[in-house]
Amino acid sequence: MKNKKEISAGIIVIGNEVLSGRTLDTNTSTISVWLNSLGIKVDEVRIIPDVKKKIVDTVNELRKKYKYVFTTGGIGPTHDDITASSISKAFNLKYGPHKEAMMILKKYYKPGEFNDGRQKMAWMPFEANLILNPTSGAPGFNVENVFCLPGVPSILKSMLGGISHKLSGGKPILSHTINLKTVESEIAKSLTIVQDKNKDVEIGSYPFFKSGKLGVAIVLRSSEQNKIDKCKLEIIKFVKKKNIKIVGKD
Amino acid sequence: MKNKKEISAGIIVIGNEVLSGRTLDTNTSTISVWLNSLGIKVDEVRIIPDVKKKIVDTVNELRKKYKYVFTTGGIGPTHDDITASSISKAFNLKYGPHKEAMMILKKYYKPGEFNDGRQKMAWMPFEANLILNPTSGAPGFNVENVFCLPGVPSILKSMLGGISHKLSGGKPILSHTINLKTVESEIAKSLTIVQDKNKDVEIGSYPFFKSGKLGVAIVLRSSEQNKIDKCKLEIIKFVKKKNIKIVGKD
Repeated sequence: MKNKKEISAGIIVIGNEVLSGRTLDTNTSTISVWLNSLGIKVDEVRIIPDVKKKIVDTVNELRKKYKYVFTTGGIGPTHDDITASSISKAFNLKYGPHKEAMMILKKYYKPGEFNDGRQKMAWMPFEANLILNPTSGAPGFNVENVFCLPGVPSILKSMLGGISHKLSGGKPILSHTINLKTVESEIAKSLTIVQDKNKDVEIGSYPFFKSGKLGVAIVLRSSEQNKIDKCKLEIIKFVKKKNIKIVGKD
Repeated sequence: MKNKKEISAGIIVIGNEVLSGRTLDTNTSTISVWLNSLGIKVDEVRIIPDVKKKIVDTVNELRKKYKYVFTTGGIGPTHDDITASSISKAFNLKYGPHKEAMMILKKYYKPGEFNDGRQKMAWMPFEANLILNPTSGAPGFNVENVFCLPGVPSILKSMLGGISHKLSGGKPILSHTINLKTVESEIAKSLTIVQDKNKDVEIGSYPFFKSGKLGVAIVLRSSEQNKIDKCKLEIIKFVKKKNIKIVGKD
């Protein structure tokens, strides 16, 4: 089902707080949905701890594997924020105060408030391109195909718009969901037949339990609307034949 | 900060629905919190697509790297459920109907209802050990140190209790959170000093915006309560000196 023309991305979530289970990672979903709209598909996500060697190795592995890599977390002012220094190491670039970032932060804070901790947020690879932060000042940055974003979801969201023009994607990835009042085993065989006949549509089947109701969501994904429509018709055909109720679409 | 005695685990989340951003992965958090209580620390999470080669390669890489590996998703009856056949391939074991799993499912369904789709859920490596499923019948399984669980969060949760006795963990990993009414840059320097003096306590600093309030959560993690307590006192000391308000603990 892998489409050769697909433009791929990897996400690296950096943070002990996600690995410990304390924090639920919502950034993956935010970034994936946004990338899909730009015709870029996330092929892999790695959640790793705040450990320099691990960050360096993972960045170096994924940046060769995927067209784009996004990291989240670890660009704040405290001791556990080591993404910027790790990226410098991964690319073998000098790590220090970034001129433009220093200027932005100096303007952002009141005179006398631009302390050491805040200055740390301007430390990054000298050659980095900034990603502006309309919410809280401190910029993200990218080096080649690696884009470094903060971990706080609302700040991350506000910064994505500033990156879109730096990416060359493909056709937006479209999806269509059909919710059925059934269980997976009732439709497994028929769905396999539809998938075999439509190899370039990704068909997913997901059982759900929503407000006491049992059902299956069938999700069709492709960058071609007509291929999704064809699949949809074939599914609705066998669903009607089996007297299964369609409970919703989205 | 890496403790040599730590018992490590990796999680592999298998599912296009998470990579597309459609579904938020909550299983990582559930498994991590449960493992921490058993003294096992999650070192890495990978979210990968429903692609056989990718599953086989990832399982084979992580099962050598970590003491335990948990997979979630892909053990249902539909065409996109390929975890069990992938695990068979990874371990080079025969894939087919598992005797005990067949018996369990035959009993679970009414006569005549045990159709092909449902029988597929009993297909797995012949040598697999079952993980019982008190919610919906279809069992998970483990081969050596790899434990395969379903993707539906409520079902996964109900199966964890049945695995605990198969794992040998360490001392439970304890944590303590101090919420401060401040911003990270105000405490970064002092926090670094505390971290440097207490290398075997993992100190995390996380800014939060909750109901319009800005603050920082400091999270202390260690398997030794006295080490957490020592850190806590040192943090409270500098916090008071700086006139920063403590807004809550948990």
